[in-house]
Amino acid sequence: MPYPEEAEGFQVDGPENFTEFHKRHFKLKPFGDYDVDVKIEACGICGSDVHTISGGWGAQNFPLCVGHEIIGRAIRVGPKVTLIKEGERVGVGAQSYSCGKCKQCLNDNETYCPVEQMDTYGSKWADSGIVSQGGYSSHVRTHEHWVFPIPDALETNAVAPMLCAGLTAFSPLVRNGAGPGKKVGIVGLGGIGHFGIMFAKALGAETWAISRSRAKEADALKLGADGYIATAEEGWEKPHLCSFDLIINCANSSKGFDLARYLSMMDVHGRWISVGLPEEEGQVIKAQNLISNGVLIGASHLGSRREMLQMLQLAADKGLKGWVEEIPIGEEGLKDAIQRMKKGDVRYRFTLTGYEKVFG
Amino acid sequence: MPYPEEAEGFQVDGPENFTEFHKRHFKLKPFGDYDVDVKIEACGICGSDVHTISGGWGAQNFPLCVGHEIIGRAIRVGPKVTLIKEGERVGVGAQSYSCGKCKQCLNDNETYCPVEQMDTYGSKWADSGIVSQGGYSSHVRTHEHWVFPIPDALETNAVAPMLCAGLTAFSPLVRNGAGPGKKVGIVGLGGIGHFGIMFAKALGAETWAISRSRAKEADALKLGADGYIATAEEGWEKPHLCSFDLIINCANSSKGFDLARYLSMMDVHGRWISVGLPEEEGQVIKAQNLISNGVLIGASHLGSRREMLQMLQLAADKGLKGWVEEIPIGEEGLKDAIQRMKKGDVRYRFTLTGYEKVFG
Repeated sequence: MPYPEEAEGFQVDGPENFTEFHKRHFKLKPFGDYDVDVKIEACGICGSDVHTISGGWGAQNFPLCVGHEIIGRAIRVGPKVTLIKEGERVGVGAQSYSCGKCKQCLNDNETYCPVEQMDTYGSKWADSGIVSQGGYSSHVRTHEHWVFPIPDALETNAVAPMLCAGLTAFSPLVRNGAGPGKKVGIVGLGGIGHFGIMFAKALGAETWAISRSRAKEADALKLGADGYIATAEEGWEKPHLCSFDLIINCANSSKGFDLARYLSMMDVHGRWISVGLPEEEGQVIKAQNLISNGVLIGASHLGSRREMLQMLQLAADKGLKGWVEEIPIGEEGLKDAIQRMKKGDVRYRFTLTGYEKVFG
Repeated sequence: MPYPEEAEGFQVDGPENFTEFHKRHFKLKPFGDYDVDVKIEACGICGSDVHTISGGWGAQNFPLCVGHEIIGRAIRVGPKVTLIKEGERVGVGAQSYSCGKCKQCLNDNETYCPVEQMDTYGSKWADSGIVSQGGYSSHVRTHEHWVFPIPDALETNAVAPMLCAGLTAFSPLVRNGAGPGKKVGIVGLGGIGHFGIMFAKALGAETWAISRSRAKEADALKLGADGYIATAEEGWEKPHLCSFDLIINCANSSKGFDLARYLSMMDVHGRWISVGLPEEEGQVIKAQNLISNGVLIGASHLGSRREMLQMLQLAADKGLKGWVEEIPIGEEGLKDAIQRMKKGDVRYRFTLTGYEKVFG
């Protein structure tokens, strides 16, 4: 099989027409000694994909092929690659490079590298000027550190969304002590949130789903939640005052969000960690809102390679899988999926399939 | 010596005339089995006193005698008191009661007790309806848990401000790991901040003072700072990007505060802890501001009894003392001191003295 010089994928030309996808060829970055070429078999549709192509996060490098919840086959590995074997089933997530040498990179904080970070799509390589293109395509070319072997027990289509949504939920859980004896809340039952519930429970924490209505209660319990809080109900926070050790805020929007009520549920020095990046202007925070229980507010960005491998192994050991709806990749399937994502009409993730048919 | 039924002190009648103090008698709460009567010898003037009497923190129970950095003599102890001996030199800080039985109280988090909290001044006792009055007065009557023996090595006038300002700086330092190998910043070189520098250094951290101009640099170095950052200077944050483990924000105002630049100096998962309670409307925080280094933002409220004793012992062991300007208590001295506090014209704390002369 000849190695690819180019990939073929579905690009969007800008926010004006962000549901119009165009099948095109585009150049891959020059193949490096540590690179792995991945022939893609499936890709989740992440909320980031929608924020990016719709312009909600600001200007981007268009035309752009998004997608960063990639599962595929390693068809070529560079001469210095040691972490991945040719032929292995692998995943690629939302980040595809960091400097690898700084204090953060050497400390499992490579997703916070202040020197250089490349997103799987939309980032420009400094040397070649090529803009990285994501997984709504035939191939990605990625440094081995950002390519992850997938345990055999995990199904391709169900594991794909773990590569971004799953890790985004998993990293702040383990970094902030989710485990036995801890009470953990997950706000927002979407792609990230449904993994949050699953993983918090798998890690041994008392796990609560926090959503607006009761519409997703049955799902939450099936995902492993021990309890459910519906914030549309009067006095919802009262039974939980000063009791949560950790809440992961996966909400995709901060509109109408009464943060002080959520924070009143935190135990002293509890942690409120946001993983969503709402498009709105942010929230006003006064020290007065934080002082009554000394709560800490933070945010979390993806997770390290070490955490990715740990999460995949946990999922394999406990038989965890994403709840996905499969959609065949193509102009129509993408348009439909993105429109439904915009409305929040998915439980809880789309996975694009049928790559072989479209890309050969 | 007869036990006091009343105390005598200097009250303010409301925010309209908050620099006018009136010498009056007022009732003490009924003496309880665990109470200690303290004959006051000195009291620091805290920023809280000014926020309170000037109305900056909203409605208060006037007329009010403020002051919660109290040093005096225990002249009477209740029949069940075990922590304090009659005749001992003691201190009283900003809080004077909590439930004592809840999870927080039993966990050294009594300053976060969600059941009941009494401030040393301005809080109403539920049983008697009496409003607590502070230390610009002859006596306070306080539950033993909130009365602290003062080590002999510490001077009355220099230790007084440690009872609130000192502890407010000390607690978040020890709770957030200030010590050898850590880089700690103290923003705002006032009453709390000057203790912050002193204690961060005494705890073994690499300590940086962060202030607007260079005006206080010599003082900061004398207090123990290893370095000084002047935020009026171009590019002040650049040499420190992603390096601070902990910054204690002691600033008294959030006006014109570019939080994102401060946060850019934090190491991954570093902590930004505010101890001031500015009167302004708060700051807008977006998850985007927190995500590049996964920083945690929090606030801290005073400190536990255990921490108070630990701080006083550390000060005694290392010969640390507050930098104070002594002012004789009285209508004139108070007016002058409060006016100067409003302008930030004090290095770094006033201590009221001459109690014997005024109250006998």
